[in-house]
Amino acid sequence: MTGRRSRIESLSNPLVKRMRLLREKRHRREEGLFLAEGLRIATEAREAGILPQWLFLGPEGDAHPLAKALAADTLAAGGEVVDTTGAILSKLSGKDNPQTVVGIYPEPRTRLADLDRDAASIWLVAERLRDPGNLGTMLRTGDAVGAGGLILLGESTDPYAVEAVRASMGAIFTQKLVQADWEDFLPWLRGGAGQLVATWLGGDTQDYQAVRYAAPTFILTGNESQGMPAAYADAADVRVKMPMMGKADSLNAAVATAVMAYEVLNQRRR
Amino acid sequence: MTGRRSRIESLSNPLVKRMRLLREKRHRREEGLFLAEGLRIATEAREAGILPQWLFLGPEGDAHPLAKALAADTLAAGGEVVDTTGAILSKLSGKDNPQTVVGIYPEPRTRLADLDRDAASIWLVAERLRDPGNLGTMLRTGDAVGAGGLILLGESTDPYAVEAVRASMGAIFTQKLVQADWEDFLPWLRGGAGQLVATWLGGDTQDYQAVRYAAPTFILTGNESQGMPAAYADAADVRVKMPMMGKADSLNAAVATAVMAYEVLNQRRR
Repeated sequence: MTGRRSRIESLSNPLVKRMRLLREKRHRREEGLFLAEGLRIATEAREAGILPQWLFLGPEGDAHPLAKALAADTLAAGGEVVDTTGAILSKLSGKDNPQTVVGIYPEPRTRLADLDRDAASIWLVAERLRDPGNLGTMLRTGDAVGAGGLILLGESTDPYAVEAVRASMGAIFTQKLVQADWEDFLPWLRGGAGQLVATWLGGDTQDYQAVRYAAPTFILTGNESQGMPAAYADAADVRVKMPMMGKADSLNAAVATAVMAYEVLNQRRR
Repeated sequence: MTGRRSRIESLSNPLVKRMRLLREKRHRREEGLFLAEGLRIATEAREAGILPQWLFLGPEGDAHPLAKALAADTLAAGGEVVDTTGAILSKLSGKDNPQTVVGIYPEPRTRLADLDRDAASIWLVAERLRDPGNLGTMLRTGDAVGAGGLILLGESTDPYAVEAVRASMGAIFTQKLVQADWEDFLPWLRGGAGQLVATWLGGDTQDYQAVRYAAPTFILTGNESQGMPAAYADAADVRVKMPMMGKADSLNAAVATAVMAYEVLNQRRR
């Protein structure tokens, strides 16, 4: 299977117009595709064995060894390499200073049933996450602590939005990503091993360092402004709190998740 | 000293136009003022003894006990309470769903010489921080760990931008905030007690949990994409690294700062 190589220099080219629409959630859903900018993220993907369906390559692309390798592998995998202009890359990425490459990837659409929970000892779970930067940052943190992936519960911000993909710094390709409802998640969780740990601002909590975490640990973080429903915290195996020494009663959601995840990791590496 | 209470209903009112310009950095600098939205942040400020020069109060304002208290205290402190419309609040905050209140506050412009380093056992230091969300999140984390404040080195994003103020969740009013250059910071630091800890991606580092931190601990985090100059890491008392179990070589800057800061706090509370 060998892909094709083409050249597009017109901003009104139909493929450019179609790919540019992937900046909108509705079109991502319809196409089952998303857009990732930059050589760094595309190289992370390539190292994870994931190649784009289309690779838009800027004028400096062929001078860069990583970009050349990316183009060759994309073709070998049956994808299309599009040599293009800086103006078209800007149009695709919506930025004045475009990256060297823009890749168009299929959304994996992983389901709970596809997850092998024993493949990792930490899993992140976030409920009605609203901020794409927080979502991408959680994926990046998940990669850092060796988590298996991120399970998004309820109506969350779109993980395939450009801002989320960018904040993930490539972890969108290495972390499993599942969108599910609580009603499906809880039975799935209870169908196997797994400790559900809620970071909870209400009562009946333990200090997050006082708990011995059991693998696989599922770290559940609630919505940025409202936290999680009490029923979710009640259903968790343990409710924990980080010490808060100041005026505020909570941490940023991505920060709270990271502080928790490093505690679990630190216990394991002792 | 008693302030005044006025009513503004015209979008073209000169005060509204002037305050709206505070969404631009240049005008913030000229006026020495910044804008904070929402009852929650204004109440944090009030509890820290900081009241706005102008308080714009929406139609529902008088029904809310916290808004009423805020208005009364603003007047008692000599400020101006402006009863206004939802449309004007939207114009000021740039959001479709405006908050109940918008407050206009003087920028404190704290200098290194104003800091009492012994007032806290943790201080955060960030170098050429670019993202206002990261900056505000660091302030919020600083509050949570009982830090004294945040020292911004070099050309950083503006801490008084609306996005940074919002992400701080009120910590902009409780954490000291200093903008300085490395050339001034290092002599100031060495003029008293203080351990400078660099989160460093290069060589010659220790595991962040292997170090016993001495108070006051200054946690130095580098620029989001480039990290810090090697000379800064060399000048630090210790260079540390968090374990990275995945593909990525770094954490988000605000996350790295938080993981470090909680380690320092946890050592102190043992």
